[in-house]
Amino acid sequence: MIHPILLCGGSGTRLWPLSRKSYPKQFAKLLGDQTLFQASAQRLSGEGFAAPTVLTNSDFRFIVTEQLADVGIDPAAILIEPEGRNTAPAVLAAALWLEKTDPDGVMLIAPSDHVVPDAPAFRAAVQAGLSAACAGQLVTFGIKPAHAETGYGYLELAEDPGDFSARAIALTQFIEKPGAARAQEMLDAGNFLWNAGIFLFSVKGILDAFRSHAPNLITPVQQAVDAGQHDLGFLRLAPEPWAKADDISIDYAVMEKADNLVVVPFAAGWSDLGGWDAVWRETARDDRGVATSGAGTAIDCDNTLLRSEDSNLEVVGIGLKNIVAVAMTDAVLIADINRAQDVKLAVAALKSKSAKQAEEFPKDHRPWGWFESLVVGARFQVKRIVVHPGAALSLQSHHHRSEHWIVVEGTAEVTVDQEVKLVTENQSVYIPLGAVHRMVNPGKVPMVLIEVQTGSYLGEDDIIRYEDVYART
Amino acid sequence: MIHPILLCGGSGTRLWPLSRKSYPKQFAKLLGDQTLFQASAQRLSGEGFAAPTVLTNSDFRFIVTEQLADVGIDPAAILIEPEGRNTAPAVLAAALWLEKTDPDGVMLIAPSDHVVPDAPAFRAAVQAGLSAACAGQLVTFGIKPAHAETGYGYLELAEDPGDFSARAIALTQFIEKPGAARAQEMLDAGNFLWNAGIFLFSVKGILDAFRSHAPNLITPVQQAVDAGQHDLGFLRLAPEPWAKADDISIDYAVMEKADNLVVVPFAAGWSDLGGWDAVWRETARDDRGVATSGAGTAIDCDNTLLRSEDSNLEVVGIGLKNIVAVAMTDAVLIADINRAQDVKLAVAALKSKSAKQAEEFPKDHRPWGWFESLVVGARFQVKRIVVHPGAALSLQSHHHRSEHWIVVEGTAEVTVDQEVKLVTENQSVYIPLGAVHRMVNPGKVPMVLIEVQTGSYLGEDDIIRYEDVYART
Repeated sequence: MIHPILLCGGSGTRLWPLSRKSYPKQFAKLLGDQTLFQASAQRLSGEGFAAPTVLTNSDFRFIVTEQLADVGIDPAAILIEPEGRNTAPAVLAAALWLEKTDPDGVMLIAPSDHVVPDAPAFRAAVQAGLSAACAGQLVTFGIKPAHAETGYGYLELAEDPGDFSARAIALTQFIEKPGAARAQEMLDAGNFLWNAGIFLFSVKGILDAFRSHAPNLITPVQQAVDAGQHDLGFLRLAPEPWAKADDISIDYAVMEKADNLVVVPFAAGWSDLGGWDAVWRETARDDRGVATSGAGTAIDCDNTLLRSEDSNLEVVGIGLKNIVAVAMTDAVLIADINRAQDVKLAVAALKSKSAKQAEEFPKDHRPWGWFESLVVGARFQVKRIVVHPGAALSLQSHHHRSEHWIVVEGTAEVTVDQEVKLVTENQSVYIPLGAVHRMVNPGKVPMVLIEVQTGSYLGEDDIIRYEDVYART
Repeated sequence: MIHPILLCGGSGTRLWPLSRKSYPKQFAKLLGDQTLFQASAQRLSGEGFAAPTVLTNSDFRFIVTEQLADVGIDPAAILIEPEGRNTAPAVLAAALWLEKTDPDGVMLIAPSDHVVPDAPAFRAAVQAGLSAACAGQLVTFGIKPAHAETGYGYLELAEDPGDFSARAIALTQFIEKPGAARAQEMLDAGNFLWNAGIFLFSVKGILDAFRSHAPNLITPVQQAVDAGQHDLGFLRLAPEPWAKADDISIDYAVMEKADNLVVVPFAAGWSDLGGWDAVWRETARDDRGVATSGAGTAIDCDNTLLRSEDSNLEVVGIGLKNIVAVAMTDAVLIADINRAQDVKLAVAALKSKSAKQAEEFPKDHRPWGWFESLVVGARFQVKRIVVHPGAALSLQSHHHRSEHWIVVEGTAEVTVDQEVKLVTENQSVYIPLGAVHRMVNPGKVPMVLIEVQTGSYLGEDDIIRYEDVYART
């Protein structure tokens, strides 16, 4: 059995506005009906695979559980990194965690924000590396380069991958991101493949490698795992030892030093969706190179990606060439497709003017569901609140606002001070300022509620939590 | 005294999405803090000008009164055209209307969707034409051409306008929209000016001209004025005779045939804002030709217009050249600036897919104020409703929905069946399905209310009106 280890803590900005710090790209439906994270989890499921172990951070923990539940996958464990320390501590934590339950197991490390359209081909490549991994070797996967990319590291193979049949080939060396000339040389040579950051190895094999090449990491990460706190099914790694682990990638810490690496070549399609240009390349296009999604309409355009992320938002392009446009109800990006890597400048510009769109997603995901602000006035705010079946908001009160709740779908069980009552579609309830209140969805379908707040201060931080099933008090 | 006649019935689509059939460009703040209509009315006010007479259609009548009130202008009359019949019947109606009150008056015909940045210079040009108009001549205003435009008609002057000092020069001929070569010839010649559709003449002078050159129009338009219905301060021209008037422009019907025309040249700046390229030209730009408005951010762009029409909508452009982008919360246009005239294709494309954004503005203006839909679900809708001080919605009921009203600003007087009560900030009221109800704003400040509708059908046409102060029953 192979244990998939899904790395899911990243928060890239290159796909802003769809990817934001509060809800990054692995959780977005960039291609098709599943999020990248969901597709990654499904790709590494089925025969031969154990339930996945997910490494993420505290902010994303409920997004992870919700998205896995949506596709019917029950994770083996969700490890919460107290802070991002790059991939080496994360991989080591996963290995030490698995050592407790399956010390003879094999683990597959996979970023959760990549696209691999041909999942069976990828699983075949994994199988081709399995015997080497079981024998204690460290298996990497090398992607057939499509162009002389300078943004990736490369893997030099001891022999030419030939027809890219799935087999393990000895690795000669890791090569860091090259300059343009070197990239072209490697592309021409044929035995240099892209390093996709996907690895297969046994628990024993990788722990041996850490002990040999990154011994300083062992103690803090072992302590972080051993002292981890179990919290509602999550394992929170212990923050103090974790903070002592070096912030270092698995490549630098281990792979570049190890001498027992092999590469399984892979040519069936892969992208890390590292920018909107990559999303454009991975999206079905017409014969003029135009890809539209959602309510997007392209008129006489060429080589253009037009995305509307909301069914009520019509986006029309006229006469565009080499443009990427991504429209959401709170933010629109329009860029030359060759400037896709400069999207980070957009995020920086918005941060410098304190625009919330820089980092915050309009839908705010919470353990019990999500909410969005529909309109904000000087002394009022209207929210749509969606509560999952069986979920409950904390028992809380506010100092500065009162709230009107109108249930528009499903049924809520509402507590206001001493009173508890069922409120169903087309019924409302009033929460006076200062009242201790809670809403629960006792039903089997999502409950949708419109909340109208009035008061002099309407910030999310005006909240006193008395009880919370998600341990947020 | 000069009577300004503001033509305000147009519904152009070339500035979509800001200009839509339900709320066209003359009512939009395209440049600065006033709408084009407001700026037009103010430009033709002050010393020497009587209160304006406005020609518009029934859909826009309350927008006209609201926008005039906003800038403190009290109109002399608002004539409502039962249907658009082009400019000749409209001008004739205004002349026949004025004949009743000021038969010796002078009238200035002005479209309400043009930009003339230098209002004093324009008023000086009007003064320069006044003696000719009083003497019975028909005065036009000729704009100094900025380029070899093929989209306008031209006026050939009997002599060169020289330094464009404000004086009346005899007109040789009207020239219809030319081809490119002819336009260039006229630009080079110097004595050909753009026809801006602005006219000054005496009531007697224009009526004489109609009698001579378009006698067929007299009877139907006279009947439409004489049988017009006074309605809340509007004069609704009688539909049946009006429908018999030819659909024809003042240029074709009168000006091209008359031999008593003079032209006052004008070189102080004018635009009909006939497309987003024109808006870009009229907007202040940086040294790379970039104009942004609202929450728009341009990074390394050239010759680009980036507009956000909502303070909560961040629009970022990166590396754009010759692009116009206009973003609203329900629609985004992104076009090559040289394709600005193809914006009509966008509207046609949206119409063909029945997208409401083709013609409907997100804010729905009503005689009592406006509303907008905040969110629409399968069986619910949330609206923000803003009611002007002293205004009242109709007494109404619905067959398919019940409503929760929460007042968030101001005070409402609410009728539900037999009960009438005051509802103030942070109070709510429930309107059961079928109940006869009404809301009034009895106060001195706008009243803002959040309406949560639930029901199986939520269309605007599920309404039975019992009483309405705006005569809509």
